[in-house]
Amino acid sequence: MAQLVQQYLDRILAEHAGVSDGVLADYIPELAGVDPEGFALSLSSADGHVYETGSTAVEFTIQSISKPFTYALALDSLGQAAVDARIGVEPSGEAFNEISVDKTSKTPKNPMINAGAIAAASLVPGATADERFDALHDFYSGFAGRRLELDHDVYASEKATGNRNRAIAYMLASFGVLEGDPDEALDVYFRQCSLKVTSTDLARMAVTLARGGVNPATGRRVTNAAVVKRTLSVMVTCGMYDAAGDWVSAVGMPAKSGVGGGIVAVLPGQLGIGTYSPRLDAKGNSVRGVRVCRSLSEQLGLHFLSVARDSRATLRAVYEPRDNVRVYETHGDLLFSGAELLVRTVDRDRGRFEVAILDVSRVDDIDDAARSMLSGMSAELRSQNKVGYLVDPDGIVIRTGSDFEQVRYLCVDDAVEAAEQALRRGFAG
Amino acid sequence: MAQLVQQYLDRILAEHAGVSDGVLADYIPELAGVDPEGFALSLSSADGHVYETGSTAVEFTIQSISKPFTYALALDSLGQAAVDARIGVEPSGEAFNEISVDKTSKTPKNPMINAGAIAAASLVPGATADERFDALHDFYSGFAGRRLELDHDVYASEKATGNRNRAIAYMLASFGVLEGDPDEALDVYFRQCSLKVTSTDLARMAVTLARGGVNPATGRRVTNAAVVKRTLSVMVTCGMYDAAGDWVSAVGMPAKSGVGGGIVAVLPGQLGIGTYSPRLDAKGNSVRGVRVCRSLSEQLGLHFLSVARDSRATLRAVYEPRDNVRVYETHGDLLFSGAELLVRTVDRDRGRFEVAILDVSRVDDIDDAARSMLSGMSAELRSQNKVGYLVDPDGIVIRTGSDFEQVRYLCVDDAVEAAEQALRRGFAG
Amino acid sequence: MAQLVQQYLDRILAEHAGVSDGVLADYIPELAGVDPEGFALSLSSADGHVYETGSTAVEFTIQSISKPFTYALALDSLGQAAVDARIGVEPSGEAFNEISVDKTSKTPKNPMINAGAIAAASLVPGATADERFDALHDFYSGFAGRRLELDHDVYASEKATGNRNRAIAYMLASFGVLEGDPDEALDVYFRQCSLKVTSTDLARMAVTLARGGVNPATGRRVTNAAVVKRTLSVMVTCGMYDAAGDWVSAVGMPAKSGVGGGIVAVLPGQLGIGTYSPRLDAKGNSVRGVRVCRSLSEQLGLHFLSVARDSRATLRAVYEPRDNVRVYETHGDLLFSGAELLVRTVDRDRGRFEVAILDVSRVDDIDDAARSMLSGMSAELRSQNKVGYLVDPDGIVIRTGSDFEQVRYLCVDDAVEAAEQALRRGFAG
Amino acid sequence: MAQLVQQYLDRILAEHAGVSDGVLADYIPELAGVDPEGFALSLSSADGHVYETGSTAVEFTIQSISKPFTYALALDSLGQAAVDARIGVEPSGEAFNEISVDKTSKTPKNPMINAGAIAAASLVPGATADERFDALHDFYSGFAGRRLELDHDVYASEKATGNRNRAIAYMLASFGVLEGDPDEALDVYFRQCSLKVTSTDLARMAVTLARGGVNPATGRRVTNAAVVKRTLSVMVTCGMYDAAGDWVSAVGMPAKSGVGGGIVAVLPGQLGIGTYSPRLDAKGNSVRGVRVCRSLSEQLGLHFLSVARDSRATLRAVYEPRDNVRVYETHGDLLFSGAELLVRTVDRDRGRFEVAILDVSRVDDIDDAARSMLSGMSAELRSQNKVGYLVDPDGIVIRTGSDFEQVRYLCVDDAVEAAEQALRRGFAG
Repeated sequence: MAQLVQQYLDRILAEHAGVSDGVLADYIPELAGVDPEGFALSLSSADGHVYETGSTAVEFTIQSISKPFTYALALDSLGQAAVDARIGVEPSGEAFNEISVDKTSKTPKNPMINAGAIAAASLVPGATADERFDALHDFYSGFAGRRLELDHDVYASEKATGNRNRAIAYMLASFGVLEGDPDEALDVYFRQCSLKVTSTDLARMAVTLARGGVNPATGRRVTNAAVVKRTLSVMVTCGMYDAAGDWVSAVGMPAKSGVGGGIVAVLPGQLGIGTYSPRLDAKGNSVRGVRVCRSLSEQLGLHFLSVARDSRATLRAVYEPRDNVRVYETHGDLLFSGAELLVRTVDRDRGRFEVAILDVSRVDDIDDAARSMLSGMSAELRSQNKVGYLVDPDGIVIRTGSDFEQVRYLCVDDAVEAAEQALRRGFAG
Repeated sequence: MAQLVQQYLDRILAEHAGVSDGVLADYIPELAGVDPEGFALSLSSADGHVYETGSTAVEFTIQSISKPFTYALALDSLGQAAVDARIGVEPSGEAFNEISVDKTSKTPKNPMINAGAIAAASLVPGATADERFDALHDFYSGFAGRRLELDHDVYASEKATGNRNRAIAYMLASFGVLEGDPDEALDVYFRQCSLKVTSTDLARMAVTLARGGVNPATGRRVTNAAVVKRTLSVMVTCGMYDAAGDWVSAVGMPAKSGVGGGIVAVLPGQLGIGTYSPRLDAKGNSVRGVRVCRSLSEQLGLHFLSVARDSRATLRAVYEPRDNVRVYETHGDLLFSGAELLVRTVDRDRGRFEVAILDVSRVDDIDDAARSMLSGMSAELRSQNKVGYLVDPDGIVIRTGSDFEQVRYLCVDDAVEAAEQALRRGFAG
Repeated sequence: MAQLVQQYLDRILAEHAGVSDGVLADYIPELAGVDPEGFALSLSSADGHVYETGSTAVEFTIQSISKPFTYALALDSLGQAAVDARIGVEPSGEAFNEISVDKTSKTPKNPMINAGAIAAASLVPGATADERFDALHDFYSGFAGRRLELDHDVYASEKATGNRNRAIAYMLASFGVLEGDPDEALDVYFRQCSLKVTSTDLARMAVTLARGGVNPATGRRVTNAAVVKRTLSVMVTCGMYDAAGDWVSAVGMPAKSGVGGGIVAVLPGQLGIGTYSPRLDAKGNSVRGVRVCRSLSEQLGLHFLSVARDSRATLRAVYEPRDNVRVYETHGDLLFSGAELLVRTVDRDRGRFEVAILDVSRVDDIDDAARSMLSGMSAELRSQNKVGYLVDPDGIVIRTGSDFEQVRYLCVDDAVEAAEQALRRGFAG
Repeated sequence: MAQLVQQYLDRILAEHAGVSDGVLADYIPELAGVDPEGFALSLSSADGHVYETGSTAVEFTIQSISKPFTYALALDSLGQAAVDARIGVEPSGEAFNEISVDKTSKTPKNPMINAGAIAAASLVPGATADERFDALHDFYSGFAGRRLELDHDVYASEKATGNRNRAIAYMLASFGVLEGDPDEALDVYFRQCSLKVTSTDLARMAVTLARGGVNPATGRRVTNAAVVKRTLSVMVTCGMYDAAGDWVSAVGMPAKSGVGGGIVAVLPGQLGIGTYSPRLDAKGNSVRGVRVCRSLSEQLGLHFLSVARDSRATLRAVYEPRDNVRVYETHGDLLFSGAELLVRTVDRDRGRFEVAILDVSRVDDIDDAARSMLSGMSAELRSQNKVGYLVDPDGIVIRTGSDFEQVRYLCVDDAVEAAEQALRRGFAG
């Protein structure tokens, strides 16, 4: 039944595939030379199941998407107080590569702008640039669940053209934010930006944040929940540049983009998303990536303020009132991610029942994404010669235009009785 | 078992009761003359259960806490596009009473500053100031679940001293943001600020936002989920003034304060909080109110990014493997609000079982607040001559220093078997 | 010989006459309805001689050009300390009608923006709006040297459309900058803006500032030198809005413009200039007026930093070594305004000599404007059957392309001897 | 009679000698180790006469005072258009060492902040850093009228601690403002800041600007008047940091300070001033230097807007109506610098007369500084057994408390007749 989600993602990708706005980053030849048509979307559920669509095998450099992860490593290594003394958490209201610090504290405004990111790189423990980079490399790979590789050409080019970052590093040194050799911190930073990822790597890195620091695919705890909370908080207010209010309102997912064309977006507790499309808008964000994030949020209800409503909506109980009949009782608000879990659970259980009774009588609200997935589930069951009964006294699932094809009851007892009769007479859904 | 939550709230209030920092608002005599010691905290759960501590019966004027509700009414009445054309959603980086508009759009930066709030008041439909105020009054009362009253003295004083707001209204009129008579919009605004609430009213108004627009106590839908999402988004980035990054990071609850001493804070999907303490800091926020919000977030894990993790942690299933034995199966991350629901559910069911088996084998993480509530539940069961068995193979509940007093098993089957034996032999927990 | 200056001014006017950029102010019908082609330039020398070109008889409302004069009256009436406590002197970096005060002092940034101008109007002594306006009216009229009249239609329109200024006045009242009724201060302000002037009035007002407060035409001291110094200082840094650096550099005359189409410009110690052309640029400055000011500064060397160089260049000595021979000895740098004085002095004296010897041997530098005027003087003398001898050992006046037609000597003694011989033989230049 | 000016300067120095506010610059040991008590004031008249008081022989590094001179050299070498393309002329509203450029043009805001100064240094022609520095060195020395020396220790320290300037240089390189190797431009800049001057050097450099680019002591033209006008314009608006309005209003002299303790101030057409006192205020300006500049401006009327008034006040004519009687006819406003010229002229002529008749009947205004100098001249003449007659029909010189001790007449004829009689009877003043 996973294809229901898959179809959603395919459709969203298709919606935006024709958009050709934006231009490739061109400050180094490696970025200017990529295929501008590459377009990929990956989504990992909270338990580590990954959906993919588009050119998800294409590797690109992580660039600024590295920033939250290096920040997380600094927090993990030194603790929040030590990091706060060097890097703020407020929106800068400035370009990501502004050569500036907070007027009062003389520290970078936040770790999502270059100044804060270089400062964060300098805080990673290690006796040499190599040692620091190795620590970063391990940490990132833990999030991705596989060993990431360095793009040596990009690294060489970044280093050769990095006057602006060099300016930032010397500025930080002059304020005492950066200890040691500014060139060494820069070297770590240039290397971290040159690590290669796919959209699926980003989805896995995202879901590891969504899960409070545990990579659900590997089961490994990469960092702790406090570090993740802080990192995601900063992504909320500073991740997508100056239009924080608009992004929070319209998308509502902590996110970070990179000039390599990637975007990582996190739905805390629920999902990790990675997108790839290398044509950038004037702010340096992937044009199609931003659109995909907006569509996901709108169409699937993936807004962190909505998701919280979803929190009570997973399965309240699953039980078998009799053999071959399984009741799935849900409550609260039923949105995309609750429906996704329900559909996958029913799919997993399909060897164990003939009739699935879905009880939504305690559900407060349901959105279009969830309604559509239930319809899909209904069709799927029918194709397997099984039947889904719906307990929906208020008719919240069945509305004009909906296509849940199965039988509907006003209470569970009626449904169970009907199921028994059906099974007794040889079953014909 | 509600006293477990009650004790938490009592303790947090006590922690900050001695704080005497801050000063009363003194621009009008009615505010300057209130008892500075008033201190109250109210919390409503998602299903409308209200916990109270302190002087929760004291009425005070809602003041700026009215802003998100008037904004919500404008959105509800006119739709988002029409409201967006008049009021932005970005942090202003300025004082709440700044006489300014966005440099580009010539509209107020957001609805949480006075300019945006006066603009919002002017958008409320109505042929006269009275009609508009009546609409507002009904709307607010729907959130609170009771008819709010106007403080006529405060209203008269606000009107007499409102030169600054008058300046704002004329500015808006000059930009064409405000149609009609500026004095009429001001009159509505001065009245909305003068409505009287208690901390419990605020908690109920908050939880109505938390529940997507449905007041769980009255069951009435006051507005729709889209309006609420937009309103909460703006509260995230603009509600508590300029330190958005710090507030999101440290508290993580959309919130709004007023110079009357109140704060409203919303944990989407979960909780509504109202606090009252009239001594204000330099920014006009209640000193003790801010501290209480921080403590609630830290101690109870009430951060919207944490809460999302909590989303999979409510009850996965409740079933009776045999008479008088009830299994409560949880999963995901178990934090405050999941534990609160669990404890209340067990409490509600207590006439139906002798042995409660709490299965946490699928729980990923648990925080101190949840652990402490489970300990309290264990003691409570014992006092009722019942027994709680814990299925906790990884020992996440039982740690050094914890005091879950009951029996612990590695799997549910063992627990059920033990329960059967215990019940058979007459039971002695 | 005054026609030399006249020709300069005519030529400058002609240069810009064809420019049709800009639009009329249209916020009130009276401004929107004026003849867009009106174009005038008036210039008063330090001793009160006025040159005019174009439609100098056209009356228009003074508008913001009133600001420095009201500020001067406030300084004159209350002293600098009292005025400084209410109005700053720094550039605002904002639009002239910004509704804002200095963040620290909570007073208007300077008296050239509306906020500062309304505050200044409120400082003019008087028991009623009428009394205050009468004081202003007298003061302005003293600068102009004639009784100015009020445009009652403009006054009525300004009052009807002044929401933005009303916002400013209420803002000032809320900060305690404005005492008394904001509407009364506004009434004075709307009236002062509605006084009618011609470009020649502006030139006379300007020269009264240039002369330290004495109107050279009437001989009346309108205010004192300290008030004028302060007023001109503020015009230097704040008079022409945000591009202070560029204006000081390119024009170098304290100046003020108004949306009525006028510009007043002051060359301290030297000249007063008034221009009129009602089409405005995006900042609200007269398009052709600004161009005329730039041309005057460039072509005539009317920059206050150049003028100071000019300061030693007026006549060092005038003497008659013998009857009918007059020596004019100059020194320092000889620029426009020194040459203008020289030419007029020679013209005035022409009944007393047959030979004028101009000794420039002590002149350090001479610019094109001065050189051209000397050529013109030479031609003029010849037409009157007189002769000009030039003592110019370094040849600074006579260069390729110049046309000083008269006889040139290396020292005064030679010139005097030649003059004696010429006169003796009946004279034939 | 030069001692009259001398006494003025001595008195001003004495007034501020006891001020011990401020601290030495301490970012390099060479600056931290200077004698904090050093205090000097030098003033050069327009014709190159230098007055000195205090420790005028002490050498200190020029530091930021170099900025206008390097800017002038860039203008002189490349022309204004080429320089304008790289460096703006607007106040920055920021600290002098801000690492920033103009948001729109991406060039430094002005040449008085470090970014603009480093950009200017990079524009000085030369194939190598040595060649560029040699050009600068020659240019500065031309202003000073002597060969300046480099402080090698300061240069080495500046280079070792220059991370902030390094940041600025890399920033400029990243914007394409700086071509070539950023380290080379920095090397030139560090050297220019390390040139050693005395307060008298600064006064001579200042007067060379005051005289339009001609050093009056050496007679050499160092640069042209257009370059000087532009340079002084920028000093007016940007020289003394952010309080441009206050500085223009209170001091009114284009100026520049350096952390070495020097200030250079220019009264265009009139004077050059150099001060030295190494204790700095929070903005990096010499505490006592700023006070001396304010006192000079207030007490001597050295404000560029006042000076312009002075422009017509020099000698209108000097003639001898009979042997041993010399008439000095003045007109316009008589302020410090006109009086200084008058006093020196009378002093120079003293071998040629017995009676000096000073005719002030055409003087419009006179200030205290001028009045006091005339009194001093009167006493001086008496001590030489000469006599001064004053033609002062309006009594503008003789007022209560004044002490012009000589004989006073209502018209020149009376004075001449009295002088004749006095000389005839053997003279007894």
